[in-house]
Amino acid sequence: MKHIKAGVIGATGYTGAELVRLLSCHPNVSLAAVSSVSYEGQRISDIYPNLYGICDLTLSAAGDVITGCDAVFAALPHGLSEEIAANCKDAVFIDLGADFRIADESVYKTWYGKPFLHPGLHGSAVYSIPELHRSEIRDAGIIANPGCYPTASALGLAPAIEGGLIETEGIIIDSKSGVTGAGRGLTQNTHFPDTNEAFSAYKAGVHRHTPEIEQQLSRLAGTDVKVTFIPHLLPVNRGIESTIYCRLKKGVSYKTTRLAYENAYKNERFVRIMPQEVYANIKNVRMSNYCDISLHTDAHTGMLIICACIDNMVKGAAGQAIQNMNIRFGFDESAGLLAAPPAF
Amino acid sequence: MKHIKAGVIGATGYTGAELVRLLSCHPNVSLAAVSSVSYEGQRISDIYPNLYGICDLTLSAAGDVITGCDAVFAALPHGLSEEIAANCKDAVFIDLGADFRIADESVYKTWYGKPFLHPGLHGSAVYSIPELHRSEIRDAGIIANPGCYPTASALGLAPAIEGGLIETEGIIIDSKSGVTGAGRGLTQNTHFPDTNEAFSAYKAGVHRHTPEIEQQLSRLAGTDVKVTFIPHLLPVNRGIESTIYCRLKKGVSYKTTRLAYENAYKNERFVRIMPQEVYANIKNVRMSNYCDISLHTDAHTGMLIICACIDNMVKGAAGQAIQNMNIRFGFDESAGLLAAPPAF
Amino acid sequence: MKHIKAGVIGATGYTGAELVRLLSCHPNVSLAAVSSVSYEGQRISDIYPNLYGICDLTLSAAGDVITGCDAVFAALPHGLSEEIAANCKDAVFIDLGADFRIADESVYKTWYGKPFLHPGLHGSAVYSIPELHRSEIRDAGIIANPGCYPTASALGLAPAIEGGLIETEGIIIDSKSGVTGAGRGLTQNTHFPDTNEAFSAYKAGVHRHTPEIEQQLSRLAGTDVKVTFIPHLLPVNRGIESTIYCRLKKGVSYKTTRLAYENAYKNERFVRIMPQEVYANIKNVRMSNYCDISLHTDAHTGMLIICACIDNMVKGAAGQAIQNMNIRFGFDESAGLLAAPPAF
Amino acid sequence: MKHIKAGVIGATGYTGAELVRLLSCHPNVSLAAVSSVSYEGQRISDIYPNLYGICDLTLSAAGDVITGCDAVFAALPHGLSEEIAANCKDAVFIDLGADFRIADESVYKTWYGKPFLHPGLHGSAVYSIPELHRSEIRDAGIIANPGCYPTASALGLAPAIEGGLIETEGIIIDSKSGVTGAGRGLTQNTHFPDTNEAFSAYKAGVHRHTPEIEQQLSRLAGTDVKVTFIPHLLPVNRGIESTIYCRLKKGVSYKTTRLAYENAYKNERFVRIMPQEVYANIKNVRMSNYCDISLHTDAHTGMLIICACIDNMVKGAAGQAIQNMNIRFGFDESAGLLAAPPAF
Repeated sequence: MKHIKAGVIGATGYTGAELVRLLSCHPNVSLAAVSSVSYEGQRISDIYPNLYGICDLTLSAAGDVITGCDAVFAALPHGLSEEIAANCKDAVFIDLGADFRIADESVYKTWYGKPFLHPGLHGSAVYSIPELHRSEIRDAGIIANPGCYPTASALGLAPAIEGGLIETEGIIIDSKSGVTGAGRGLTQNTHFPDTNEAFSAYKAGVHRHTPEIEQQLSRLAGTDVKVTFIPHLLPVNRGIESTIYCRLKKGVSYKTTRLAYENAYKNERFVRIMPQEVYANIKNVRMSNYCDISLHTDAHTGMLIICACIDNMVKGAAGQAIQNMNIRFGFDESAGLLAAPPAF
Repeated sequence: MKHIKAGVIGATGYTGAELVRLLSCHPNVSLAAVSSVSYEGQRISDIYPNLYGICDLTLSAAGDVITGCDAVFAALPHGLSEEIAANCKDAVFIDLGADFRIADESVYKTWYGKPFLHPGLHGSAVYSIPELHRSEIRDAGIIANPGCYPTASALGLAPAIEGGLIETEGIIIDSKSGVTGAGRGLTQNTHFPDTNEAFSAYKAGVHRHTPEIEQQLSRLAGTDVKVTFIPHLLPVNRGIESTIYCRLKKGVSYKTTRLAYENAYKNERFVRIMPQEVYANIKNVRMSNYCDISLHTDAHTGMLIICACIDNMVKGAAGQAIQNMNIRFGFDESAGLLAAPPAF
Repeated sequence: MKHIKAGVIGATGYTGAELVRLLSCHPNVSLAAVSSVSYEGQRISDIYPNLYGICDLTLSAAGDVITGCDAVFAALPHGLSEEIAANCKDAVFIDLGADFRIADESVYKTWYGKPFLHPGLHGSAVYSIPELHRSEIRDAGIIANPGCYPTASALGLAPAIEGGLIETEGIIIDSKSGVTGAGRGLTQNTHFPDTNEAFSAYKAGVHRHTPEIEQQLSRLAGTDVKVTFIPHLLPVNRGIESTIYCRLKKGVSYKTTRLAYENAYKNERFVRIMPQEVYANIKNVRMSNYCDISLHTDAHTGMLIICACIDNMVKGAAGQAIQNMNIRFGFDESAGLLAAPPAF
Repeated sequence: MKHIKAGVIGATGYTGAELVRLLSCHPNVSLAAVSSVSYEGQRISDIYPNLYGICDLTLSAAGDVITGCDAVFAALPHGLSEEIAANCKDAVFIDLGADFRIADESVYKTWYGKPFLHPGLHGSAVYSIPELHRSEIRDAGIIANPGCYPTASALGLAPAIEGGLIETEGIIIDSKSGVTGAGRGLTQNTHFPDTNEAFSAYKAGVHRHTPEIEQQLSRLAGTDVKVTFIPHLLPVNRGIESTIYCRLKKGVSYKTTRLAYENAYKNERFVRIMPQEVYANIKNVRMSNYCDISLHTDAHTGMLIICACIDNMVKGAAGQAIQNMNIRFGFDESAGLLAAPPAF
């Protein structure tokens, strides 16, 4: 069985820790090195006791991860990945941060407040939701792993947009994310008593995933698409549910739409179209790489409502990155991602 | 101090129990009788131990509640209140069920599957969200207390619609409700392990609060308003957050809108317009009769986003019913409703 | 109606915020001043939006609270209250911190690592769980408000110990506390995803409430009592449940024990002995000043098991402090504390 | 690779569904048949949508599961397994119910209220916590899979009892279980709003796991052991934490005890002794077959406190049953059980 060495930079953030958890059980991967600025020199399992006996690697500096790994994952705050990518000469670099997601530098500047650091690298970086970009990454040196909200939004809308079934104006994406989406860093609004039994929107109209969603939908539509995207913080650990509102084009029926979705994803291991009358629910995808989609119409106003659910830490981050790695290295696309989601 | 006797029919459902809790502390009310079909003959505090020493009344039959009370509250599944109303000759009847909410019998038939039982009573029934209908109920014999979702939706949209600030077409209401909204009855999807760490939409386009919302918004607009209303089940006990999407009319600014809201509610004890950049959050209204509203614009698409939060059991049910009672009997409108919401 | 001015020092911690919430609704109190080191100059409702329109006082310095108030509450980390007490010449000082709880300076030194700062003040400080020390505080200048765990433990054990019903050796107190008990400060183990769906013991044998529990039980017993006290962190916002294990003395029956408890608390507004077969549950005391106690025996091993529940923020902190204030100032002991606990 | 056919009787209860989830990913098993009385004829994935595309078997009658399977698992309420065992002539029967757990019929009668139905079968049934009984099941025809509480208690106490380190009198087991432990059946006290933000003991001294714990500890001790066992309901989906109180024998130190535990489990894949000062936490074992144990002493009273955590659905039920199957059929003992527990 083909085997590679992989490393994780930023292994003690939530996304990094989830990568470590999943890579530790991957049949084609030896997890060779993990790094952390905050905990260098400690064992990762002392920071994450769930990993005792599973991964007891000592956390090193980022440079030590790059050397000797075939695949390097980075799970860092934005602004730190370009430099690492520049140093990954021999390794495939899979970036879970935002640095390589936005193709248009001016858009990047607007939303992230700074220019590209290494513009030359961006040409060779490929943004990949595997179900939509599988063929583009087989030789990629840099893979930009999508954000969690954009993954749910794009998978939820792709068949409708590509099939020309909906109006691309006026799309509204009302998203709700579990608290792991905010990361491991301490903030007042992720302090347990402030979050538990609470619920609200945040960053209405200004969340940085907005341009990424629009970039992706515009590509699918072949025209400029703008969306209203409002995220909310959900008092659960994991899961994103996006309720997407759009208008079916004249003459397009629910049945046609449903068939288009079933057809688009019929060979996809990780996308499931729910039976009619079943609502996509984050509980059915937790701890897994699935994206569940349900389709509904409001007979009464003619709107199409698409509910798309993923685990933000798996399909929305670490799992999708591994899926990208699997494709890039020619492994079974679902290798290491087959643990079934628990019902409860 | 003026004093009345009140009774609660259906006291062991969640709404009934919340009425009992609040009425037990009301300065102008003696809670005289409570009824329950399921637990007749038992003390209510044996069913709800939170009430030990606070209300230890024995549960009787509904008929015993009607006799001798000045105000009779009913918290029953729809279809049972008309008969009770017919028997409330001397008492003011405040109905927390759906029977008297829909004015148009044909609409009622469409959504509830049956005609009015006592059409003659409906003329004297007044639907009342106090902030919007205060003046109409001072002599009412029957008060139809609104549903939880319609309360949040109407308070959230009233100033914008009445002020002619938004287009009334294409309004989308994405609502999330805590599990008490589903009541005390046992169902698989309110079983703890099926609900906890879960989240999904339900009854998309077919929830019975839809016609009530539309009836209310149409009255405010003076024209027929249709909405897309999608409820979701939130894994918390209490609280509704409605994120409402609409388009500002040409030339209407965020500032104008904000002023209209502040003005509309400036004398309202129970409606709070959040400072700009603060998001209405269910945690700030729990256990209270407040409705918190925050206003946001997506500069990028020009949408107005209104977030409205209430406690579904208080402002969305028992609290609002007491507020209606206070008005009807000439008490201070906030009597019995002054406990401040806890921060956590 | 008699009326006083009260102030809260440390108003933006959780205990302080709960004091503000409750004092804002107290019929005999004008909340005159609130202070905070971290947020001086801001409105408290900007930090705690649940308080908008209820308490919009501007946060001042501690000194400004002392001046002009009849009652000064301090809700501060230990080590800061003695200095404040020294400055409270004219005001009654009610301390919710630990500084005045331990009478024996050597014990204090052992557990808190430092001597008393103003030993002279300790003589006039009275430790008070009202149900046990009511008569001692009528003229007190300094009232030491008990810790949350000691309150549940002492109320749970008092009738058994005072009545000589149990062996005082080998008492085990297995306590579980909601996360507000850890305060508002950010720590990794109170970060939502680290706490939610988690449960463990902490500080086994070294929690600083241990000497306070033992001091209280020793006074009740008239002899030295040692306990094994193990706290656990419960993924809920509020509530302490203590399961207390002890051995009935030879010849003492469950029935005798039960009668002793019912008798001991028969005139207490805030202590409820659960009917046999009902278990004290934190859900029935949340947001209230109640302490619920249930009594069980393991026929099989002869152990008495006492379950005692309080809301750690109310009876375990702010509520009990107000109860102490009510006694000290001659108000109805339950004034401002009558909001009934919600069932859900 | 050796391969067997397995079936699950009672597949739509929580334990059954967890077996299906885990067996679906087991490298040596083809899940051949699943049964359910309530849902016969439906696909299991229509009842448990998390299984769509993973296991879409149609639910049959129990008899159809027995035929043609090498291993038959039953996850049924007690009282139903003996009859099934009697029919499992050729298949190994692994019972997750209580019918074969208690060896002494008179004890069974006392706690379960009825005699053995097929006393003759009990001789060939082996009770197995693999870490303690591995060698006894290699040829077993019937394997009695332990209860969840007994698993945590026995693994937590075994090295101390077998090593003669503690007094076997006066052991107290204070256990807390997630709500899945109560199963899928609807009850008021597992209804979300009644359970969420709630916590209490239940069945103090009368829980049916008591005799099973005592049977196991008595075997380990070689003498009759009685325990005080008090379970509590924890508002989380999964996980049991048992805090076990016992007295070290004179002269036995914490260090000796710790070494005994490390030694006892040094070759065990699924038992982890936490580093000193780390507390066993249910969050680190969720979704996994691990049992985490931490050891603490109360210097002050000389008590040994053992904290043992498992996932009640995995190590406490389905995972342990698969571990038993792996041993019985000569597979790698950890086959199908290697998914790492998530940190959040």
